[in-house]
Amino acid sequence: MKYFATPEIGLSYTEVNNAIEAVFAEHGRGNVQMPPKVYITFPHGDFRTMPAYLPALNLAGVKVVNVHPLNPAKGLPTVMALTVILDVDTGRAIALLNATKLTNMRTGAAGAVACKYLSPKKSVILGLVGSGQQAEAQVRAIAEILSIEKILVWSRTEKNTLALCRQLSHFDCVSATLAGACDCDVLVTTTPSRAPIVKDEWVHEGTHINAIGADAKGKQELDPAILKRAMVIVDDPVQAAHSGEINVPISNGEFSVEEISGTLGEIVLGSKKRSGSEQVTVFDSTGLAIQDLAIAEIAMKSGRAFNLPYP
Amino acid sequence: MKYFATPEIGLSYTEVNNAIEAVFAEHGRGNVQMPPKVYITFPHGDFRTMPAYLPALNLAGVKVVNVHPLNPAKGLPTVMALTVILDVDTGRAIALLNATKLTNMRTGAAGAVACKYLSPKKSVILGLVGSGQQAEAQVRAIAEILSIEKILVWSRTEKNTLALCRQLSHFDCVSATLAGACDCDVLVTTTPSRAPIVKDEWVHEGTHINAIGADAKGKQELDPAILKRAMVIVDDPVQAAHSGEINVPISNGEFSVEEISGTLGEIVLGSKKRSGSEQVTVFDSTGLAIQDLAIAEIAMKSGRAFNLPYP
Repeated sequence: MKYFATPEIGLSYTEVNNAIEAVFAEHGRGNVQMPPKVYITFPHGDFRTMPAYLPALNLAGVKVVNVHPLNPAKGLPTVMALTVILDVDTGRAIALLNATKLTNMRTGAAGAVACKYLSPKKSVILGLVGSGQQAEAQVRAIAEILSIEKILVWSRTEKNTLALCRQLSHFDCVSATLAGACDCDVLVTTTPSRAPIVKDEWVHEGTHINAIGADAKGKQELDPAILKRAMVIVDDPVQAAHSGEINVPISNGEFSVEEISGTLGEIVLGSKKRSGSEQVTVFDSTGLAIQDLAIAEIAMKSGRAFNLPYP
Repeated sequence: MKYFATPEIGLSYTEVNNAIEAVFAEHGRGNVQMPPKVYITFPHGDFRTMPAYLPALNLAGVKVVNVHPLNPAKGLPTVMALTVILDVDTGRAIALLNATKLTNMRTGAAGAVACKYLSPKKSVILGLVGSGQQAEAQVRAIAEILSIEKILVWSRTEKNTLALCRQLSHFDCVSATLAGACDCDVLVTTTPSRAPIVKDEWVHEGTHINAIGADAKGKQELDPAILKRAMVIVDDPVQAAHSGEINVPISNGEFSVEEISGTLGEIVLGSKKRSGSEQVTVFDSTGLAIQDLAIAEIAMKSGRAFNLPYP
């Protein structure tokens, strides 16, 4: 069994985006085994277990990932993850990967794949609501797909906005009001909000939105009125209904699973398409176990590993 | 993060039995978070993901375990397992354990705990149907609880019976017919059978049965008539109904969940009891994630570990 402590080193978003797009195509073909994530709740956070199997890639495993919002004060990331890869033929664990940074990257890449098919244009003004690590990952992944003219950042604190713009110094990155950040072509929301913060009237026609932040029951970033007029694309209908941007509106009766227009897999396969330049589109990302397998596979090809005795 | 490659070294069944009994008591008190196991199916086997959290022990984690029946021909165990232990406060993975042998031990210990409360006497003739590693684990764990006068072993092949008796050379261990092995005080079944092999007429009054082998949909070792006249104790009602000895009889309408007499946790707490010396009792073991956490905790106290950089 090999342990990859820093499997993200040397991975480029070009190859990650390609791997994530390919695995969404597999999902669109219905050629995956992926039971819903299982949640365990702690007093100060939770952890999720995400098993999956991709027969066409002969690839199987499980990611274990926590979410502990108080961690940064203790010097630890909010989200940490470990992926176990199993040999399909024997069930033996063949690799363990520190998947903390891989999780950021595979989520960024899903946003980039959504932009490839749903962005209203190839050269865009990018709005960011939220300025954490996932905001940065989205920008870096999307930059491989679209030409980013300008980045408008809203964050709860100006300090965080400036820190992100320093990280993204190759881009024209500026601070904006919440309404101002929404005046863009592609909007990316990455906050842990539990109430709608993006108002319907701020989002103009033709905007594509990557709704990334809502990934657990009770989380929500967008005014449900946006969902009502948008083409809503999810990564996985069961997960999205349970824990994605649409979970609260579904619980409230403001949205229904029948109003989901399709999955990112169907978009990649071309069986579902954006319906014109005035269409608002929303990609509701919850994060899929198959994304974790896909990025683990390419990371294992080049990554340095420790050998561990097992079984 | 620490990796324990051989955490079973130095563990005694005395301490394992005690830890497993304590965790069943926690289960009986309803003081655990343990969603049902999640199964992924491969062409030649499967793997199961088993997360759990024990608040009273401040202990959480997940076991990943496969079942690949063709493995022995490839020189690998049929069942291999890895347990990840998470820090409750931060969600950080703090330990990984090679849980292949721990899985055998914690299953043996559950059988021993069942015998402690359900065996008709303290000095017993032990019947074994099946002669694999789990048969041996059951004997070693039960020997800490009961005095074993004689062991009667049935296996598909005499070679396997003799191999087990050589392993158990401190015991009076002999080969028996299937009916002969059932002529005992405590019967332990550990086969991968998918049809009843233990007939009702072979099981005399007062016998206690540890039904260990059935741990997935479609598996079954006992004539359902035995369940109808027995006090049926399960480790967990949801798991047992899905994948334990009772799963096929429930699917066929020959048994119902209402006929479950109780859980091993309730037996340990004394809220359910054997109803006299003539009562046949069955312990239907599917294996619980909380058993894996309990044995991991004691293994981590004394085991030697590698330090791994994480996150």
